[in-house]
Amino acid sequence: MSPTQPRQILDMNAFNPSRDRAGENPLLERHHHNFGAASVLFYRDPIEMVSASGCWMEAADGTRYLDFYNNVPSVGHCHPRVVEAVSCQLARLNIHTRYLNQCIETYAERLKATLSRTLDNLVMTCTGSEANDLALRIAALKSGNRGVIVTENAYHGNTEAVTAISPSALKRAPLSPHVVTVPAPSVDAFGSDITTGFTTAVKQAIETLRKRGYGLAAFICDAIFSSDGIHADPTDLLKPSIAAVHAAGGIYIADEVQPGFGRTGDAYWGFERHTVTPDIVTMGKPMGNGFPLAGLAVNADALACFCEEYGYFNTFGGNPVACAAGQAVLEVMEEEQLQANAQHIGAHLGTRLEALRHYDRRITAVRGAGLFIGIDLCHSGETATPSPELTSAVINGLRERRVLIGAAGRFGNTLKIRPPLCLDEQEADFFVEALSDTLASLSVKSR
Amino acid sequence: MSPTQPRQILDMNAFNPSRDRAGENPLLERHHHNFGAASVLFYRDPIEMVSASGCWMEAADGTRYLDFYNNVPSVGHCHPRVVEAVSCQLARLNIHTRYLNQCIETYAERLKATLSRTLDNLVMTCTGSEANDLALRIAALKSGNRGVIVTENAYHGNTEAVTAISPSALKRAPLSPHVVTVPAPSVDAFGSDITTGFTTAVKQAIETLRKRGYGLAAFICDAIFSSDGIHADPTDLLKPSIAAVHAAGGIYIADEVQPGFGRTGDAYWGFERHTVTPDIVTMGKPMGNGFPLAGLAVNADALACFCEEYGYFNTFGGNPVACAAGQAVLEVMEEEQLQANAQHIGAHLGTRLEALRHYDRRITAVRGAGLFIGIDLCHSGETATPSPELTSAVINGLRERRVLIGAAGRFGNTLKIRPPLCLDEQEADFFVEALSDTLASLSVKSR
Repeated sequence: MSPTQPRQILDMNAFNPSRDRAGENPLLERHHHNFGAASVLFYRDPIEMVSASGCWMEAADGTRYLDFYNNVPSVGHCHPRVVEAVSCQLARLNIHTRYLNQCIETYAERLKATLSRTLDNLVMTCTGSEANDLALRIAALKSGNRGVIVTENAYHGNTEAVTAISPSALKRAPLSPHVVTVPAPSVDAFGSDITTGFTTAVKQAIETLRKRGYGLAAFICDAIFSSDGIHADPTDLLKPSIAAVHAAGGIYIADEVQPGFGRTGDAYWGFERHTVTPDIVTMGKPMGNGFPLAGLAVNADALACFCEEYGYFNTFGGNPVACAAGQAVLEVMEEEQLQANAQHIGAHLGTRLEALRHYDRRITAVRGAGLFIGIDLCHSGETATPSPELTSAVINGLRERRVLIGAAGRFGNTLKIRPPLCLDEQEADFFVEALSDTLASLSVKSR
Repeated sequence: MSPTQPRQILDMNAFNPSRDRAGENPLLERHHHNFGAASVLFYRDPIEMVSASGCWMEAADGTRYLDFYNNVPSVGHCHPRVVEAVSCQLARLNIHTRYLNQCIETYAERLKATLSRTLDNLVMTCTGSEANDLALRIAALKSGNRGVIVTENAYHGNTEAVTAISPSALKRAPLSPHVVTVPAPSVDAFGSDITTGFTTAVKQAIETLRKRGYGLAAFICDAIFSSDGIHADPTDLLKPSIAAVHAAGGIYIADEVQPGFGRTGDAYWGFERHTVTPDIVTMGKPMGNGFPLAGLAVNADALACFCEEYGYFNTFGGNPVACAAGQAVLEVMEEEQLQANAQHIGAHLGTRLEALRHYDRRITAVRGAGLFIGIDLCHSGETATPSPELTSAVINGLRERRVLIGAAGRFGNTLKIRPPLCLDEQEADFFVEALSDTLASLSVKSR
């Protein structure tokens, strides 16, 4: 079979008003009426959620689901410390950053302490999209070029400029010529010497952009290649590519919206696992545990260069309430040692999933770092073929067994594991049992 | 004198690290260190704010300021109803819109009820910038064109695409050729027949875009021309321009980020004063009273056309907490009758400011609607010349008299009045007295 594209697997597991009937669910009908074609709902029979706590979400029918999908409520759904910090600040002062206030400086300094000293300025935004949009503009001004290199199934956000560098967000629209893709780092794409293959691909992309007259502004990736199917290794991958990027006058933007803030367990930031220092780090999603908070870190000179050309102000970005959310997240992460927990529980989960892989040949790979793990699912023929159909069946089987999960990757056959970082061993085991049961119910092929 | 550009007046009243000394204020020094060139602080000696309530903000030194600047905390700073709604929902569920929940539908329906039935779909975002960025992309796909018409000193946001249509955000960077400006509607620009002059300018801009090969995608403006200096009248202005825009295959985007949600007093939305129906309405700032909440309303077919080409998802957009904030704002507006209050207090303020204008010839115009008022300040020579210097002195004089205010307009000589909509008569009078005192202290020229 020809592998299904990722968007199709999303569609397979999403409510589709032209296929699925909304009429039987009044809330669904209202949703379709209010949001039309831009509505994206998980599952063909979407779930109405009413509350959440820790790693669990509760639906309107009383069903409690273990959340293995949502990377935003990273310190746990509705964490009381974050709720309290936001509520208190909201009652006290919620205003933009054109006046001074202590909250933002305290937060900025704590955040900067996690980063290289060369990244000495922050810009606070509301979304990772805004951060990546600004990062691209800084890169273009700093380099004097416009070309961008991304991975084949990358997703970097939803503004016009970042949609253009997000192949996974393009349906019929073609890739703009100023964007060149490289395959995500995998054995499938590059054989056993992934680093050499990936570096060669990046160098070829630089050459393509040069020939097209764009030159290289930026190479942007998240260091765990989330939407490409989660490729955490090898960790010597990025250094030679970044050297080539710098040699071509380009900038390396680390999109930490997904891997950042301790999720990979063995490092605070995804790029740290590769022992590289980005020119710009963008961040978002878990930063405020659900409060719209995002931003970027950059060298002061590069930022000053941008600010000579353009004014930049973000009304809600870095307001005291956003900073209170961010501050609470950093404090909870430290006090509850969530990075260490991600490493510890991630390792436990990895071991159990490897055991399952040895038992069930439809699982062809378990990859990841900390609590960011991908599980490839294939047809079990003579040669393993990516199976988005099996993946879809597993997603729905897990839903029946009260686990929320999604898929990623070029073929849409990678189960994407991203639970809150407070996951405990019992919850990890609950998932493994549910996955094992689901696979068993879908006619197991034993080795 | 040659009129000073608006950016310069902002600079005149902003902390400038290369001119002003941060060393004496440790918090200011930290701020500069953390945010560098992208930092924008009001006043050469910035104010540290600690709390706010109603129309008043309190600084760290205990000074209480009457807020005539901030249009975001529109129902009043830290309104207890908004605080409670957000705090409760934050403790219950804060997740994206890929699951169903009641909050978003209840809010969407209440919001849609304020708009034409033709605008039957919403897209929820976090910022007005994101909303305008998306609106431009929908317009481009719907029209098949790329050209955009904006006013000379327009500001529509901070992403790459919307900065390109925001002349006031460009410092050294030139205007892109796909963007053509028209003067804001004023007697200065068009003489006594503003509507005819403005319509002619829009038609010429359409022709320019046609000649340049871009065609017309969109005409975007806020119906009170905020950053152009607040031009509320005439209200027969927009209809003929929009007819010309439609005839050219373009779309009319009403940017309601500033005038929307009752501020203009005599209408809920700024465009309603012009008895026109936009093709897209974008909204933001006051929508969540400071919680990052924004969005757009558009016809379902136009949105579907966009969604065939691109996937769009906004992680934080329209989450239950954002919707709780938005819902509380709509409820407070209705219960406290804030639109009527904006009309009533706005009229009172207008009358008192007109009286001041008759007394002091340096005030050359008072314009506006509801609680969105502009006051032009000029040198009092034989002919009135815009005076950004006097405006700057007044802004600082008002600060000494405990009133926060800013400037706008092509020459930076328009005092921009945008207090919370809960302003009462006593507070309005406090401002008028402070303005009168300030002008008197700056050597009054009586008529």
